Amino acid sequence: MNSAGRLFRISLYGESHGPGTGVIIDGCPPGIPIGEEDFLQDLGRRKAGAEGTTPRVEADTPAILSGVFKGRTTGAPIHIGFRNENTRPDDYASFMAVPRPGHADFTAAMKYGGWQDPRGSGHFSGRITIGLVAAGVVAKKVLGYCAPNPVQFATRIVSAGGSEDVTAAVHDAAEHGDSIGALVEIRVSGLPPGWGEPFFDAAESVIAHMLFAVPAVRGLEFGDGFRAASMHGSEHNDPFIDRSGRTARNGAGGINGGITNGNELVLRIAVKPASSIGLSQKTLDFVHNRQVDLQIGGRHDACIALRSMVVLEAGVACALADLALTARALSPYQSNIPWRQE
Amino acid sequence: MNSAGRLFRISLYGESHGPGTGVIIDGCPPGIPIGEEDFLQDLGRRKAGAEGTTPRVEADTPAILSGVFKGRTTGAPIHIGFRNENTRPDDYASFMAVPRPGHADFTAAMKYGGWQDPRGSGHFSGRITIGLVAAGVVAKKVLGYCAPNPVQFATRIVSAGGSEDVTAAVHDAAEHGDSIGALVEIRVSGLPPGWGEPFFDAAESVIAHMLFAVPAVRGLEFGDGFRAASMHGSEHNDPFIDRSGRTARNGAGGINGGITNGNELVLRIAVKPASSIGLSQKTLDFVHNRQVDLQIGGRHDACIALRSMVVLEAGVACALADLALTARALSPYQSNIPWRQE
Amino acid sequence: MNSAGRLFRISLYGESHGPGTGVIIDGCPPGIPIGEEDFLQDLGRRKAGAEGTTPRVEADTPAILSGVFKGRTTGAPIHIGFRNENTRPDDYASFMAVPRPGHADFTAAMKYGGWQDPRGSGHFSGRITIGLVAAGVVAKKVLGYCAPNPVQFATRIVSAGGSEDVTAAVHDAAEHGDSIGALVEIRVSGLPPGWGEPFFDAAESVIAHMLFAVPAVRGLEFGDGFRAASMHGSEHNDPFIDRSGRTARNGAGGINGGITNGNELVLRIAVKPASSIGLSQKTLDFVHNRQVDLQIGGRHDACIALRSMVVLEAGVACALADLALTARALSPYQSNIPWRQE
Amino acid sequence: MNSAGRLFRISLYGESHGPGTGVIIDGCPPGIPIGEEDFLQDLGRRKAGAEGTTPRVEADTPAILSGVFKGRTTGAPIHIGFRNENTRPDDYASFMAVPRPGHADFTAAMKYGGWQDPRGSGHFSGRITIGLVAAGVVAKKVLGYCAPNPVQFATRIVSAGGSEDVTAAVHDAAEHGDSIGALVEIRVSGLPPGWGEPFFDAAESVIAHMLFAVPAVRGLEFGDGFRAASMHGSEHNDPFIDRSGRTARNGAGGINGGITNGNELVLRIAVKPASSIGLSQKTLDFVHNRQVDLQIGGRHDACIALRSMVVLEAGVACALADLALTARALSPYQSNIPWRQE
Repeated sequence: MNSAGRLFRISLYGESHGPGTGVIIDGCPPGIPIGEEDFLQDLGRRKAGAEGTTPRVEADTPAILSGVFKGRTTGAPIHIGFRNENTRPDDYASFMAVPRPGHADFTAAMKYGGWQDPRGSGHFSGRITIGLVAAGVVAKKVLGYCAPNPVQFATRIVSAGGSEDVTAAVHDAAEHGDSIGALVEIRVSGLPPGWGEPFFDAAESVIAHMLFAVPAVRGLEFGDGFRAASMHGSEHNDPFIDRSGRTARNGAGGINGGITNGNELVLRIAVKPASSIGLSQKTLDFVHNRQVDLQIGGRHDACIALRSMVVLEAGVACALADLALTARALSPYQSNIPWRQE
Repeated sequence: MNSAGRLFRISLYGESHGPGTGVIIDGCPPGIPIGEEDFLQDLGRRKAGAEGTTPRVEADTPAILSGVFKGRTTGAPIHIGFRNENTRPDDYASFMAVPRPGHADFTAAMKYGGWQDPRGSGHFSGRITIGLVAAGVVAKKVLGYCAPNPVQFATRIVSAGGSEDVTAAVHDAAEHGDSIGALVEIRVSGLPPGWGEPFFDAAESVIAHMLFAVPAVRGLEFGDGFRAASMHGSEHNDPFIDRSGRTARNGAGGINGGITNGNELVLRIAVKPASSIGLSQKTLDFVHNRQVDLQIGGRHDACIALRSMVVLEAGVACALADLALTARALSPYQSNIPWRQE
Repeated sequence: MNSAGRLFRISLYGESHGPGTGVIIDGCPPGIPIGEEDFLQDLGRRKAGAEGTTPRVEADTPAILSGVFKGRTTGAPIHIGFRNENTRPDDYASFMAVPRPGHADFTAAMKYGGWQDPRGSGHFSGRITIGLVAAGVVAKKVLGYCAPNPVQFATRIVSAGGSEDVTAAVHDAAEHGDSIGALVEIRVSGLPPGWGEPFFDAAESVIAHMLFAVPAVRGLEFGDGFRAASMHGSEHNDPFIDRSGRTARNGAGGINGGITNGNELVLRIAVKPASSIGLSQKTLDFVHNRQVDLQIGGRHDACIALRSMVVLEAGVACALADLALTARALSPYQSNIPWRQE
Repeated sequence: MNSAGRLFRISLYGESHGPGTGVIIDGCPPGIPIGEEDFLQDLGRRKAGAEGTTPRVEADTPAILSGVFKGRTTGAPIHIGFRNENTRPDDYASFMAVPRPGHADFTAAMKYGGWQDPRGSGHFSGRITIGLVAAGVVAKKVLGYCAPNPVQFATRIVSAGGSEDVTAAVHDAAEHGDSIGALVEIRVSGLPPGWGEPFFDAAESVIAHMLFAVPAVRGLEFGDGFRAASMHGSEHNDPFIDRSGRTARNGAGGINGGITNGNELVLRIAVKPASSIGLSQKTLDFVHNRQVDLQIGGRHDACIALRSMVVLEAGVACALADLALTARALSPYQSNIPWRQE
């Protein structure tokens, strides 16, 4: 339930205010060079610090606890752990009686009968995504070996709070004690054709499974996406323009029939505004069954998408690594040279 | 790869122009009344016939071939099969040399080295979705037993080709030999809180995995969806209004932290226009490496979303049945009565 | 629950006296030549007819219903179906009140609350193993492509009813209306080293999972097997004798640390005597709660192992095909040439 | 590949001489009381110290690193970690050139291309089983909630080195620098009827999958086991003796048709003698391609089964917990009161 993947399998554990969090990565082929320094860039992109992010400061130092020997993956499960250092295991009891709107406080209580760890959202915390970022780093390494060409990720915020001037929008939200949602775009170039399955493990399905697991994701589209719902077929038409399978406008976002087509993978994710804001919110006191004003203390992420970007990118990388290994297993034993056939 | 689900597992098989297609449903609890007549309504919604749909006419008579005895599920795998009667296993070879834009002709050739069944798109055909519709019927029955209240599906086309006058838009497209995309909305009421998992098997993830497997899906959003990317937190805020967990505007679409919250499940799916249209299209002749005009014979679906609706609904039902059974397995042994805790 | 395998996945369906039974095989690579005639030899080995087998005669004609085109696997799920022709859907009701000893009548009732199909043991019938035999045929084809050398199976009955004169023992049991158990040995040559995983997907684990699913299996051992429990390490010692990894006495039966070592795979399976015999048996009438004499009508298998042999062999083949494809996916990207390392 | 289970899922990580080892347990229902002290007894049974065990002394202190809050399981993944303290990461290089007979040195090198961690057998070490023992403790707690009666495990060594005087046999082997195999019996009482599946997830299959993953296991049998291969049906016959499903001699070892029948679960496991012994062994020097004498330094386990017992018991417990949760999910919605049916 907290694992994903058929061959490249990741399992997350941890709570926001427990001793630590991390990830076990199973199914990583042996012989791939990897060291703790390989994680620093992506982990840095997830850290707080910039305008619009919370001030919780964690060292976020990855510890490779298994599966790597003399700087190479061994083929055994890779455990990457992170200590929680800046924990404040207090001030949570009230969320049991007055669950925060837009959070998992209520649903966790209903699912777990009240036994969940409520400190800082427990296992539902954004803190848990650090393990996914670490897995994404390993996944990108795997992709480097599976794909014939370099696989490159380009991830950006297209707009935030409806504005394309992201910096100004974030600044404005932060100043007003408010938060804003954002539209994130991920592009991946260098993927070969042939990854993914015709039905349940369609490339879109495997990617979507990962991305909707990331907190705050509300929507996902590939290529033309929701715009396709308003298009005509004649306009949507996207002819091949060369024998490598390149199409005129890549409207499918790199996938046809669940299988990569060799064009750039293009997807966009709607990230909601953080529900915890400085401003006071109305909500229900479940004990006294009455509306109350909820003021959530501390400073907050004005635009969580700033930190989600690398998490989402990691989710895409893990999904692609799994598809790549499956393609390796199930590739044909001989070719029929299809387009020479009469 | 063509199976989905942890407990309520479905496996599809078949090709468009082979002897038949169908589904194996494993993990259906015993004792649930089911008969062939239960399938007719949903199968009817998937059939061609109405304006805007292809004229391929299949009887679509379901045969329950295992797992049901004296009108009740037995607990053994349920096999529901459909014969293909209206097959025309011809006229496909050209698609190997001149793969249709927007279809899986090219990607299948790349993935399978040319060994795929090309007749009528083979295993990539929309024909294969009939098994998913059948599984959806069984899933809805399971939901009827797992949820304390009746679970109701409401599925509609919000707009087609950008217009809310769906009938007119479809008529217009059909008349011009063109096709149109559509926005489909599915609402499910009666779900209890507590289904879904905090991370990789988030309710959204499990649903998304199913829906992106359905041909022609380009995007998926829950609740506020892509609109959330443009919102402020203060506007997005959605307070609880009673102790059942009802919220003011159900902006989350019925899911928080990956777990159902007891509000209506609300999701929207972008369905692209059918790529096969009556109008001539440009594309590449891979044999001679030159642009050609492609005329795809026969009549076509002017708006495939008309027939996809029930397929998508079935995908949601199967995902929910799987979540429901998992929730049954992993529910707490005793309750902590959460909101009375200090 | 009725599926097995990570990549080479098989799903069985059907009941003894329903319309038919079969198997869906997912994860078979494309381009492998296969036709209905390829199944006849192994299906023939499973058929009744010889002395010591039941007289139920089925044509056992395999129908390849999907996944094969022009004599080659396409990469899509392969559905192989068998009609039940010789059904007698009567005479079962008594088994609900007076469950047969050694059968699943009682446990099925407890598990399924009485909703199971009781006709001829329903989904618990040995009839269901025909799909596994068919999957085994496909698995052997896959092995032919995955292993560098020909993979050969040799399966025999070592002893029956404690006697090495199997023919005489079977004849004697049949004559007395009794049945006998048997010890089956399977040897597989031609396997390369490196298939299997260090822990939960140890080659023995994956094989054992399959074999203990086959009705009537009571025990399984690899290499020295139970004899190893009585051995000393100095005697058990099995040195390598050449650089290919060949060992002096292959005491491990071809597997070390969960991974094939390139020696012959050797395993033995204990098959119990058929519980249904011509002789009268004591058992309990659950309705009247008293001991009764049970006479199970018809003729019976005097030695079910005669027909189980090919089923067990098929189970081993399917397990090996799955291990082979996983090894293909997770093989190292470069080699370290281990034994030259200091 | 290093995970097992459908609902009660366990994932092991770690190497013998790395920083530590442990287990992630997913799918444990919330609200179950558990603390570090609960692990001490079973961990103690696995520790070295008694005659016949190696002198490697580890504190084996379990650290519950996630999934437990205020002494109760939360429903989130439970991470139990163990530090390696008594590591000696030396003296392994020679095993690359001269792989130890009966160990995974050779197969690991072939599988991983030489990239495996060779220190103290790395991920293949018996050290890794400590996580399985910890998971077994949690599994036993789960069983306490799933079964209507107390579930009790009784595990013993039936014989060692062929002798029923286990103490003397172990002493003798230790004195001679040799090792001995042993036959382990596990009995589990208190299981209700109805756990397990008719085919691939037969109770025996799920248990066997776990047990054959444990190092040094060479054989497994249920109930009559291998003796059944020599029996006649009339002798093997095992009538029900009361309406609870109790049978006269429990020859099936508690399972019929893959499903528990409410009788005691009885299984026996053949554990081979430790391959590393004090006595000199012949083997191959792969670098120089010649036979050499191998002397494996240090002291050794004279009878590894002494320490494997609790590991095997834990494997059975984990398998049963998984079956129990699946049974909870898929139990019938209503009963047909089977044996009143005509």
